[in-house]
Amino acid sequence: MAGNTFGSLFALTTFGESHGEAIGGIIDGCPAGLKLDFDAIQQELNRRKPGQSAIVTQRKEPDTVEFLSGIFEGVTTGTPIGFIIRNTNQKSNDYSHIKDVYRPSHADYTYDQKYGVRDYRGGGRSSARETASRVVAGAIAKQLLKSVSIQAYTSSVGDIYLEKPYQDLDFSLTESNAVRCPDTEVAERMINRIKDIRKAGDTIGGTVTCVLKNVPVGLGEPVFDKLHAQLGKAMLSINAVKGFEYGSGFCGTKMKGSEHNDLFNADGSTKTNLSGGIQGGISNGMDIYFRVAFKPVATIMQEQDTIDAQGNLVKMQGKGRHDPCVVPRAVPIVEAMAALVLADFYLINKLYK
Amino acid sequence: MAGNTFGSLFALTTFGESHGEAIGGIIDGCPAGLKLDFDAIQQELNRRKPGQSAIVTQRKEPDTVEFLSGIFEGVTTGTPIGFIIRNTNQKSNDYSHIKDVYRPSHADYTYDQKYGVRDYRGGGRSSARETASRVVAGAIAKQLLKSVSIQAYTSSVGDIYLEKPYQDLDFSLTESNAVRCPDTEVAERMINRIKDIRKAGDTIGGTVTCVLKNVPVGLGEPVFDKLHAQLGKAMLSINAVKGFEYGSGFCGTKMKGSEHNDLFNADGSTKTNLSGGIQGGISNGMDIYFRVAFKPVATIMQEQDTIDAQGNLVKMQGKGRHDPCVVPRAVPIVEAMAALVLADFYLINKLYK
Amino acid sequence: MAGNTFGSLFALTTFGESHGEAIGGIIDGCPAGLKLDFDAIQQELNRRKPGQSAIVTQRKEPDTVEFLSGIFEGVTTGTPIGFIIRNTNQKSNDYSHIKDVYRPSHADYTYDQKYGVRDYRGGGRSSARETASRVVAGAIAKQLLKSVSIQAYTSSVGDIYLEKPYQDLDFSLTESNAVRCPDTEVAERMINRIKDIRKAGDTIGGTVTCVLKNVPVGLGEPVFDKLHAQLGKAMLSINAVKGFEYGSGFCGTKMKGSEHNDLFNADGSTKTNLSGGIQGGISNGMDIYFRVAFKPVATIMQEQDTIDAQGNLVKMQGKGRHDPCVVPRAVPIVEAMAALVLADFYLINKLYK
Amino acid sequence: MAGNTFGSLFALTTFGESHGEAIGGIIDGCPAGLKLDFDAIQQELNRRKPGQSAIVTQRKEPDTVEFLSGIFEGVTTGTPIGFIIRNTNQKSNDYSHIKDVYRPSHADYTYDQKYGVRDYRGGGRSSARETASRVVAGAIAKQLLKSVSIQAYTSSVGDIYLEKPYQDLDFSLTESNAVRCPDTEVAERMINRIKDIRKAGDTIGGTVTCVLKNVPVGLGEPVFDKLHAQLGKAMLSINAVKGFEYGSGFCGTKMKGSEHNDLFNADGSTKTNLSGGIQGGISNGMDIYFRVAFKPVATIMQEQDTIDAQGNLVKMQGKGRHDPCVVPRAVPIVEAMAALVLADFYLINKLYK
Repeated sequence: MAGNTFGSLFALTTFGESHGEAIGGIIDGCPAGLKLDFDAIQQELNRRKPGQSAIVTQRKEPDTVEFLSGIFEGVTTGTPIGFIIRNTNQKSNDYSHIKDVYRPSHADYTYDQKYGVRDYRGGGRSSARETASRVVAGAIAKQLLKSVSIQAYTSSVGDIYLEKPYQDLDFSLTESNAVRCPDTEVAERMINRIKDIRKAGDTIGGTVTCVLKNVPVGLGEPVFDKLHAQLGKAMLSINAVKGFEYGSGFCGTKMKGSEHNDLFNADGSTKTNLSGGIQGGISNGMDIYFRVAFKPVATIMQEQDTIDAQGNLVKMQGKGRHDPCVVPRAVPIVEAMAALVLADFYLINKLYK
Repeated sequence: MAGNTFGSLFALTTFGESHGEAIGGIIDGCPAGLKLDFDAIQQELNRRKPGQSAIVTQRKEPDTVEFLSGIFEGVTTGTPIGFIIRNTNQKSNDYSHIKDVYRPSHADYTYDQKYGVRDYRGGGRSSARETASRVVAGAIAKQLLKSVSIQAYTSSVGDIYLEKPYQDLDFSLTESNAVRCPDTEVAERMINRIKDIRKAGDTIGGTVTCVLKNVPVGLGEPVFDKLHAQLGKAMLSINAVKGFEYGSGFCGTKMKGSEHNDLFNADGSTKTNLSGGIQGGISNGMDIYFRVAFKPVATIMQEQDTIDAQGNLVKMQGKGRHDPCVVPRAVPIVEAMAALVLADFYLINKLYK
Repeated sequence: MAGNTFGSLFALTTFGESHGEAIGGIIDGCPAGLKLDFDAIQQELNRRKPGQSAIVTQRKEPDTVEFLSGIFEGVTTGTPIGFIIRNTNQKSNDYSHIKDVYRPSHADYTYDQKYGVRDYRGGGRSSARETASRVVAGAIAKQLLKSVSIQAYTSSVGDIYLEKPYQDLDFSLTESNAVRCPDTEVAERMINRIKDIRKAGDTIGGTVTCVLKNVPVGLGEPVFDKLHAQLGKAMLSINAVKGFEYGSGFCGTKMKGSEHNDLFNADGSTKTNLSGGIQGGISNGMDIYFRVAFKPVATIMQEQDTIDAQGNLVKMQGKGRHDPCVVPRAVPIVEAMAALVLADFYLINKLYK
Repeated sequence: MAGNTFGSLFALTTFGESHGEAIGGIIDGCPAGLKLDFDAIQQELNRRKPGQSAIVTQRKEPDTVEFLSGIFEGVTTGTPIGFIIRNTNQKSNDYSHIKDVYRPSHADYTYDQKYGVRDYRGGGRSSARETASRVVAGAIAKQLLKSVSIQAYTSSVGDIYLEKPYQDLDFSLTESNAVRCPDTEVAERMINRIKDIRKAGDTIGGTVTCVLKNVPVGLGEPVFDKLHAQLGKAMLSINAVKGFEYGSGFCGTKMKGSEHNDLFNADGSTKTNLSGGIQGGISNGMDIYFRVAFKPVATIMQEQDTIDAQGNLVKMQGKGRHDPCVVPRAVPIVEAMAALVLADFYLINKLYK
C-alpha cells in the first residue's frame, strides 16, 4: 500500500536509502527449482552501477549483492529471496549543504510535505540508488523467462535520435559503447553530446527503447491489468521518467484505422505490428516494443535559486558526483522492470487458462 | 489478480460483457457519510454513452445506473456500493459474422488464445462498454474530492491539434461541442474531420489532455506507486490507448536540466511547471497535466483480409454501430480514471503522515 | 482493504444489505472453460435459505441467483462472474423499532461508532444475509474442485454433542434432517432442543464440524498464509463464530509429542492424523477436519434492557423472524468458505512448483 | 501471494531460513515521525530468543537486530524499514541426519512435495526461527499503538491450567518466571511439568491467553476482515498453533442468548463481555481477549519410526537443541502478532470514517 512492492505473484519489495546502511529487497513468489546464474545477476548490476564509464556519475560503489535466503545449493527453494547491497561510499557530509534546502525538481520538498521528516542524504529513498534492487530482481526474472529476449537501448540523447527501426539494429552492439546505443556512429555523437553537457555543468534528457521477443501468447490480464498498462506503470515508476508509449504510440494517433490495423497471417501472426505485440492488453506473440522518456537530471553544477525549509530564498549549486544523463544507466533498469512485469504475468497466466 | 479491480483503498471491481445481461461493479472503500448527487453521476454517464451526437456510435443505450447497496437515504454507509447498468440494446445477431473470425487489431485472437473460450458478441469483455462502470465510480470519486478540479478535453484528432497551452483555454467550452474541444474553431475542424473519415468507412486516432487542479500536496506513494505511474497505468488501461506522458513528457527529453528545472517561489510553488505537478512521484500542489494517445478504432467499414479460428483466410467488413473516433467519448473516461487514482491516493495519504 | 473481498486468485467481493435492493458479488479469477451446473448452485442456496424448515427463521426469500456476466453458453469465460440475488421480502417497517436502539451483542453500536451512519434495517450489512453471496461463490468453487469432497455437519447444539468421530458417520444422512446432523438419533434430540429454546423465546449456540477429503498435497502457503490460518480466518469471518480448531485442536494442548506425532506409512500417508491433514501450513493429503464454534443468536424474543443512540436506557424485545440457532443454516456456509479457501490455494499452487 | 507478507497498510514481509545467512524483513507502511525505542525492541527479541532459561532450547543466538533503512536519527521516515538478524549459531551438521528423512509431524514431507527442493537444515523456512522477524515488527507496532496494552501469558501447560479469569491476574508477574504465567504458584507447577517432560525426552502442548486493553472503538473491517478473523489468522499462522477462540469461545456454544448477550451501560460499555470486545467484527472498546492452542513440539528425543524421501522405513531420533514446550517463548510472538493486527486496522480505520 505504501508503494514499495511491485508485482503480485512474482513480487519484489525493496527498502533502502541512498546513504543508509544498505539497500535491498525481498523477492516473494519466485518458483522453486530455478538454478541461478549469480554471475549473470552481478553482470546486470555492473551495467547499472556508478563509475562504470566517463559519462556517468563517478561515485564508486562495488554494488555487490549478498543473498540471505531462499536459495539452497544454488537453487531457489520457493521461499522468499532476501538480499542486500551494502552502501560503501556514503559521503554523507557531501550533503550537509542540502539538509535544509529544497533542490529544484527533486523530491526534497514533496517528501518533507508528505512525511514531515526526511533522510536528506543523497535524496534518501527518492534516489535512483533504489533501482539497484530492481536490477537484482529483474536479473532473476530474466532467468525465469529463459526463452524471452529483453533488449533495451538508448534511442535518443537530447535531440540526437537513433532513427533506424529496431528491426535494423544489431543488439550485440548495445554494450559496446558507454551510452548503450547499438549504432556505433550515433553512439559516438551521443557520447560527445553528454561530454559537452557535462563540461557545461548541465544535464540532458533522452529516451530508451525496449524490445521483447518470444513473449508467449496470452500474457496480460484484462481489464485494468493490461500488459501494456503494467509495463507503463513499471517504466513510469523509474526515476526521471516522463512518458511511455508502445507500438505505434503517439504517432498512431495520426493514423487511420485502415492504415493502423495489423492484418493476420494464417498462423495468427500479423503482417504489420503497429499494435506492438499486444491486443486487448494481452500479448499476441509478436514483438513487444515500447519507448520511455527520461527528463534531464535535476542536479546541475550551476548555481540555482531555490528555497530552504523555512521558505527563505537561497542559492545552491550541485555538488558531488552525478550523472549528466541518466539514459545509459537506465537501460538495464528498463530491462529489469520489463522482466518483472513479464515474470508476474507469466505466473498469473499459468492459472487462468 | 485477474485484473478486474482498480485501486486499493478506493477500489473498483467491474464485471460485464458488451452484450451480456448487465455490466456493473462494486466500489469498496468509499468513506461513509458522503451525500451523493445522483444526477451528477448520471450526467457523467451521459457524456460517455453511445448515440449522444452525430460523430459517435449510433447504438442506443440509456445507460441508466441502478445502485443496489452501500447507500442509505442518499448517503454512503461505508459498505460496498454495488451497481448495475442493464444492457438494453444487445442485437446479438449483429455479431454472428464474427463468431469464428478474428477481427484485425481487436482482442478476438488473444482472448481465444488465452482463455480457449470467448463471448464474441460485440467484443465481450474487451469492449469499451466496460468503461461505463468506471465512469460511475469516477463520478463518485469526483464527489469525494470536492475541491479538486478534473478537466479533460480533446487535444487532437488525427493531425488536427489544439496548439494552445491548457492555461489559455476556457474549459467551460469543452461540453459545448460534440468533440469536446474547448476551442470552438478547432473543434469544428475536428468534427468535420471525423465526419469525413466516417463517410470513408474509416476511423482516426487522437489525443486527450487532462488537467488536475487543486490536488493536495503529498498524494502518491514512492517507490513503485508514484502518482504519475498510477495515472499512467490508469490511462493505459483504457481501450485503444497507446501512450501517456505528463508534464514535459517526451518533449522534456530534448531539454537541458538548466532549462527543465522548476525553480521555487518562497511559498513552495514553482515558477515553471515542467514537472507537471509531481516530484518524486508525489504531488507538489501545482497543476497536474498529462496527455493520452488513442489509436484509430479497429472496426472499419471497409473489407479487410483476416483469418478465422481455424486459420483460414477470409474477408470481413465491419457491421453495426461503431465510433469513427473514440476521443470524444474518451474524455469522461479519462476524467473518471484520474478521479479513481486521486481518490485512492487521497485515502492512502490520510494514513502515512 | 475495506474487507469485502475474500481470496486473491479466486477472489469473491460481495455487496449488499439485508433489506436493500439486492445482495450479490463478483467472482474474479475463476478459470475459463468450467461448465457450470446451475441447479447445484441453486441447491446450495436452498440449503442456506430462510424458511426451509420449522427450526429456522420463517422469513420467506426465494434466494434466486441471477448471473450477469462471465458465463457464455453455460461455460465460464475467465472474465469476472457478476451475480445478484434480489431481496424480495424486505419488511423494512419490521425494523423501525431498532432505528435508534442498539441491540445487545449485535453490531449496531460498533457500526454507528465506526461509520457514523448505518442502514439499521435488519442489521444492514452486518446481517448474515450477506452469506448467501458466499454460498453462490462457494458452489462454483466446489465445481472447480471436482475431486475434493467438502462435508460439514452439525456436531453440537448447546450441550448436545455428536460424540462419534467423523470417520464413523454416514454423511449421506446430513441432509436427511432439519438440523443437518448425520446421526438420526442425535439429530432428533438437537431438533427438540431447538424447538424448546424457540418456545422460550431464547436462542442457543452450537458447533459445526467440516471434513475435507481428497485435497491435493501441497495446498497452503507458508508463512503467513498457512492453509489452516486461512481456513480459520474464513470461518471466523462467518457471523456468530467464536472459535476455530483443526486436527487435535485444543485437546492437543494436553498431549505429549510422543502421543501426538503422526507416524508415516511408506507411501507418505500417516498412521494417525492428529495433524488434521496439514503440516507446516501445507496439506499432506490426509483428511482435513476442523470445528467451528457458533454463539447463540443475539436476537431473542424476551425483553432486554439496552440503550438508544442518545445513551438513554430503554427496553426492547426482538420482533420479526429469526433463527433460534444458526447452526443448521451455517452448515452450507462453512462448506462454501472452505471451498473458497481451497480454490484459492489450488490456483496458487499451480504456480510455485 | 506466496504467503510471506502479513498486513496491508502496516505490512510485514519476512524472509529467511533457520540456518541460512540471516533472517529479516521489511515493514512497509509504518507512519513517519515515530521515535523508536530500540531497547524495547531488543527486549522483545530477548523474550523470544533461545537459551533464555532452563526450560527452553539451549541453542545460543544473540538475536541482535540490525536496522538498515526507514529510520533517520532514530525516527521513522515513512519509507520501508528493512532489518536483518544474522544467524550466528548454525551448526548445519547437526542436521545431516534429517537430510533425506521426513520427521513425523514436521513440514519436511509437505515442503518436499510442494516445492521439490528443501533447505533441510533446522527445518529451513518452516522453523519457528522466522518468528523473530515478527517480534521485531510487532515491537514497532506496539510503539505505534502507545495507549493500547497487549498482554499475553501462559494459561496452560498440558493439563495444568491457570483457572483464574484474566481480571484477577497481576500481569506484572508474567515475566517473573520462566514459563510466563502470572500466577507464581501455577507457574512453578508448569515449570516442573516441563522439566519432567524434558527429562523423559518428550514434549508437551499448552495454551496462551492474550488480553488487549484500551483498543479504540471501531477497529476491524466487515465482512471478511473482521477483527477477530484477522486475529485468528495471525495466531494460526504461528508455528504449532491448532486452535483459536475469543470471548466466550467454544464455551459460548453451550449458552443461551439470554445468558450470552452483553447488556449495555449508558456510556456504550457493556455489563458483561462474553463478546470479547468485538461485535460484528469491530472493536467496541471493551477488553479483547482470546486463547491460542499450541500442540506439543514434534521433535522429541525418543526414537521414532519414519520414512525417507525414497519411501524407505527408517528410524530416527531428535538431536540438537529443542524446546520441550513452545508456550513460554510463544508469549511474545502472540503479542507481536496481535500488535501487527491492531496496527493494520488502526491505520485502515483512519480512512473510512
